[in-house]
Parts: sequence; C-alpha cells; structure tokens
Amino acid sequence: MSSERPTPEWSLSCPTPSVESEKISLGHGSGGKLTARLIEQTIIPRFRNEWMERLDDQAMLTTGGERIAFTTDSFVVTPLFFPGGDIGALAVNGTVNDLAMGGATPRWLSLSLILEEGLEMKTLQRVLDSIRTAADRAGVSIVTGDTKVVGRGGADKLFINTAGIGVVEAGRELSSARVQPGDAIVLSGSIGDHGMAILSQRQGLDIGGDLRSDTAPLHELVRAMLDTGADIHAMRDPTRGGVAATLVEIATRRKLGLRIDEQAIAVKDVVRGACEILGLDPLFVANEGKLVAFVAEKDVDRVLSAMTAHPLGRDARCIGRVETGRPGIVSVQTTIGTVRVLDLPLAEALPRIC
Amino acid sequence: MSSERPTPEWSLSCPTPSVESEKISLGHGSGGKLTARLIEQTIIPRFRNEWMERLDDQAMLTTGGERIAFTTDSFVVTPLFFPGGDIGALAVNGTVNDLAMGGATPRWLSLSLILEEGLEMKTLQRVLDSIRTAADRAGVSIVTGDTKVVGRGGADKLFINTAGIGVVEAGRELSSARVQPGDAIVLSGSIGDHGMAILSQRQGLDIGGDLRSDTAPLHELVRAMLDTGADIHAMRDPTRGGVAATLVEIATRRKLGLRIDEQAIAVKDVVRGACEILGLDPLFVANEGKLVAFVAEKDVDRVLSAMTAHPLGRDARCIGRVETGRPGIVSVQTTIGTVRVLDLPLAEALPRIC
Repeated sequence: MSSERPTPEWSLSCPTPSVESEKISLGHGSGGKLTARLIEQTIIPRFRNEWMERLDDQAMLTTGGERIAFTTDSFVVTPLFFPGGDIGALAVNGTVNDLAMGGATPRWLSLSLILEEGLEMKTLQRVLDSIRTAADRAGVSIVTGDTKVVGRGGADKLFINTAGIGVVEAGRELSSARVQPGDAIVLSGSIGDHGMAILSQRQGLDIGGDLRSDTAPLHELVRAMLDTGADIHAMRDPTRGGVAATLVEIATRRKLGLRIDEQAIAVKDVVRGACEILGLDPLFVANEGKLVAFVAEKDVDRVLSAMTAHPLGRDARCIGRVETGRPGIVSVQTTIGTVRVLDLPLAEALPRIC
Repeated sequence: MSSERPTPEWSLSCPTPSVESEKISLGHGSGGKLTARLIEQTIIPRFRNEWMERLDDQAMLTTGGERIAFTTDSFVVTPLFFPGGDIGALAVNGTVNDLAMGGATPRWLSLSLILEEGLEMKTLQRVLDSIRTAADRAGVSIVTGDTKVVGRGGADKLFINTAGIGVVEAGRELSSARVQPGDAIVLSGSIGDHGMAILSQRQGLDIGGDLRSDTAPLHELVRAMLDTGADIHAMRDPTRGGVAATLVEIATRRKLGLRIDEQAIAVKDVVRGACEILGLDPLFVANEGKLVAFVAEKDVDRVLSAMTAHPLGRDARCIGRVETGRPGIVSVQTTIGTVRVLDLPLAEALPRIC
C-alpha cells in the first residue's frame, strides 16, 4: 500500500525536486540548469513541433518558396544604461544576432515596450534613439510595435521585446543538429565583457580599466564567414550563461563530447580582474557580441582568416574540438594542465543581465 | 526678445503640455489621446519608414515574391485569469487578430515570457496550457520563444509578448489607407464585453449575469467575409480604447468624417449595467473578439450575410457610413435622436486591460 501513496507536494527533500511543484526563482532565468529544465520540462512539451524541437535560437519557416528565420527576445536588463550600451542597443543587437546565428540576413524587427508609470520621458527617448541607431547600424527596419504601461511597481522602469525576421539564402543550413565529431570550435573574441560590465556597474565596482559591454550586431561577421564557402555547421551567440551554457547545451542535446582548451580562450585583464573579485568564472559570464561556430575541420583556417580580418572577429581563435567519445561532456584542458568537466550551475546568481 | 525665450521645462500650465517633458503615466497606455500622442510624437518619428507610417495593426512585408504580415503585442492584463479567458488566450488571439485584420492567414507565433520571482509554477503551467489550446484553436504554431525572470516586485507576476507572422494572398489589400467616403462601417457583434469582464472582476462587482470576455480568434470570420469576394477596404479589431478609439483614429489619420448610429450598436444588458455602475461609455471599452470593417457600399449585404452565418459574427450589423464632409470627425446619432461628436479622452482610466 505504501508504494501506491502519492508523493505529497511538500516532499521537497527529494534530491531532484520536480519543477512542477516549484515557484519561479531567479535561477529559472539565469541560463543555468533551472532555465534548461523550465524550458525542456514545462514549455517545450506543450508546443512540440518541428520548430520548437530544433531548439536553435531562431525558427526556420518556409513561405513562398523562400526560407525566413523568426526569433524573439525580451530584455529586462538593469541598469538600463551601462558602459558600452543600453537596453535599446541590446534589444536590437540581440535579435539581429539570433537571426544571424541561423545564417539569415536580418531584415525586419518588431518593437514592443512595457513601460512603468513614472518613467521619465527623456529616458524613453534616449532608449528609442539608441534603438534607432542600433537598427541603422545593423541595417534592419523597425516595422511594427506595441506599447503598454503598467502602474508604479508593476514593472521595473522599462522592458523591451524585439522579434525579428531574416531572410535565409537557399541551401544554407546552420543548426546544432549538424554539429558532429571532428568539428573545430571557433570563438570570435574575448569573453565575459557584457556580463562583467553590467555586474560591476550594479555592484559599484570601480576597478579601473575599460569594462564595457561588447554588444554588437554580428551579421556582417557571419556573412564574411559564410562568404568563404566554408562548411560551417552551426553558430551560437553565447549570451546568458556564457560560453559554458552554449557548449553544455550542445553537448547535452546532441550527446556529443566537446573538448576545450582554456588557454585559447581570450579574457581581457579587466574582465578577469572583475571576475576574480566577484568569484566568477568568465566561461559562465554573458556575452552580447561574440559567437561560437562549429566548423568542418578542413575549413577552419579560412574561417579564421575571414574572422580575424573583421573588426568583431579580430581575436577569433579555435578553442577546441568535438570529440568522438564522452557524449554529453564538455572537458576543459585548464591552463595548469589538468582537465575539468564543465557543468552548469543549478542557478547562477546573475539575474537580469540582458 | 521675449518671443525667443525658450519655454521653460517647468511650464506645465501650458494647455497642451509637450509629451517630451512628461513622465510616463497610466494614460499613455490607455488607448486615449496620450497613447496616440506618445506613438505619433515620440515613437513613430524615430522609425519613419513605409511600414510604420502605414499605422495598421500589422506590417506587410514582401519576401520571395510572397507577402507576409508581421505584428507584435505585449500583454500585461490583470488579473491573469478572468471570466471567458486568461492572459494566455488573450495573447494568442490578440496576435492572431492583428494578422487577420490585414487579411493574412495567421501561421506562426513567437512566445516571450517575463516572469516574476515567486510566481507559482502551477500558474505558469495553466497559462501555457491555455496558450496551447488557443494556438490549436487558431491553427497557429508557437515556433520560437524566450523566457526571462525578474526579481520579486520587478514585474507583476507574468507578462507575455507574442509576435506573429501570417501569409497574405496575392492581391489582398486591407489597410486604413483604403477607407473612403461612402464606405459602410460594419461591426461584428456586441461591444464592451472584454473590458467590463476585467473591470468588474477587478472592482469586485457582482452584478449577476454572465459578464465574460469575448476573447476569440477572428481569422475564420475574416476569411468567410473575404471569401464573398466583397470589396472590403480595411478591418480593425477595436481593443484598447474600444470602438471609439478605432473610429477616431481612422477619422483623424485619414481626415474623413464617420457617422455612426448608436442604436445599431449592440451592447449586452449585463455590459450596459456594469458600464452604468462604473460610469463608462461602452463605445470606449475594450473588445477582444470583435472587428470593425470598412466595406464598399455595394457589397455590404453579402458581407453581413457571411458574418451573421458565422458564430463570431452572429450579431453583425452595419453601424454607419464614411461621409464626404466633416473630415476628422466621428459623429454619433444617439438613441434619443441628438448627434454627439466622439472624442477620445486624454487618458481613460482603464489600465492593464490587455
């Protein structure tokens, strides 16, 4: 009889508590395991279709014989303005990059604002100006929008949603489904800049040096890479959860082993310093202007040449390989010669980083 | 010299204060004049392009020789659950309807969630289930998404953004730009149901009767109307600000006179009763499952036949005409025989209705 007794809801001592009996915590938005669990256990099963199951950063849709990429992102970053950018630039670049990671040419963006009562009109104007500048820079048009206002305390100043549509050239196929053993893993530059710029501003850290967000539109770098004719299998922009979250996600979902050389990963001194003060590993810190590419080994040199010739890929390097063994595992060869296994924290304490 | 002195920023006694020196108020989200002013003075000028200037509920884009419609909406309604619907159904139907109003067949939706720390997982699941049900009913797929979490007090429980893409048949052209003198104005059913369902729930009104939101996907009703081959010039779903906001917006922007017969506008007794208690005019109250169509006079009968044969258009009626004179004015022939001019309030006090 006891075996038939249902697990009571208060039984939270269970080592892997069901996500179904929880409340939403900040960790569900961190890019760590709780985020992955929320998406995979609660959201995806309700919308099971060919697009959602692909689990790339954009959906590929076919209309009129042409393929378009479609993506959405909400931005809740605090503070609204930070060294190197603001919520407006982030919203445009983030959506442009999600399209670019699918090999699409970004074309049209929607802009939806949720404003808190009492927000200074000047603040809104400054954000809108930044959105305009970022859209011009990325060559996209804001074509449709929506504005909602909630009472004081109903939201924190200003949230932005941007959805985007891009056009995908025939025959182009970038997807984590194409990542395979032997692929070279290429990273476009130094990591952790965005996350540490936000965090240090929030914590009032003054460590000198130029700690700035790397927010930037990556579609032209992507085009330069694709124009080489190289066989690029997949691209991701390692935002929330950093390069670690991107690699672990692909290793886990594709049941592949990834091996990374920590020495090959560029981290600016000022970022490393800030990470040390706050006890963070730069591999887990968000980027907003970097990409990770999975490239057929034979083509890695020409991809790297194209990248290093572009201002946003100047520090691009090959940082590792997809292995044949160790499915689901990301191993990191550390700078001191040991090997550690990269695992996502249950919930990284980096809320509202984008 | 005095004529050159700039207006000081504190000069708020000016009868039409510049939106540029204000703070965001709830009125900016009400669908009244402040909303129109915010959009037309602060947002549109920064994104002047062929799509934004069209000012319809969706952007029409051409890709691969085919036209697609693209729209976005954020939903911040409180309470999350109300008689006749919930924020999830509202988010799907609202975006489906914005596409349908452009004559598009809704196909793909994005889903972006902003969750407040502490939200019950069961609440999220219930909303996601409702989104799934509404998407199935409307024949659309949720193809891409995003989830953000903000700390307790950083948002009010749950906000949803849905952007949508629909496919538009060749030659179909529904736009407020096509509304012209002589057009019949058709309304698909009774008004004020959604707004009063929300408000009465929020105010704890218990007036008996069945006060329910009318949230519903209108694309099949629209298809039935278009399938008649009638010359329909434009369609709008009169949501925030009600039928009044929709009519005033078209009259103002197109510099046309609209004449409405109040007696032809259906209002359920229970809605009228609730409006009287709260001192509201049903013409200004939000709907979420109704449409207003501008139809060539010669075709109005067959459009009405098609509408009344559809469950969501059973109570459709012709409620007025576009006139040749009185540009920018919406005149209402009242039930007692007088004529009043419809004007938007500066800021209707109906926050967070959708």
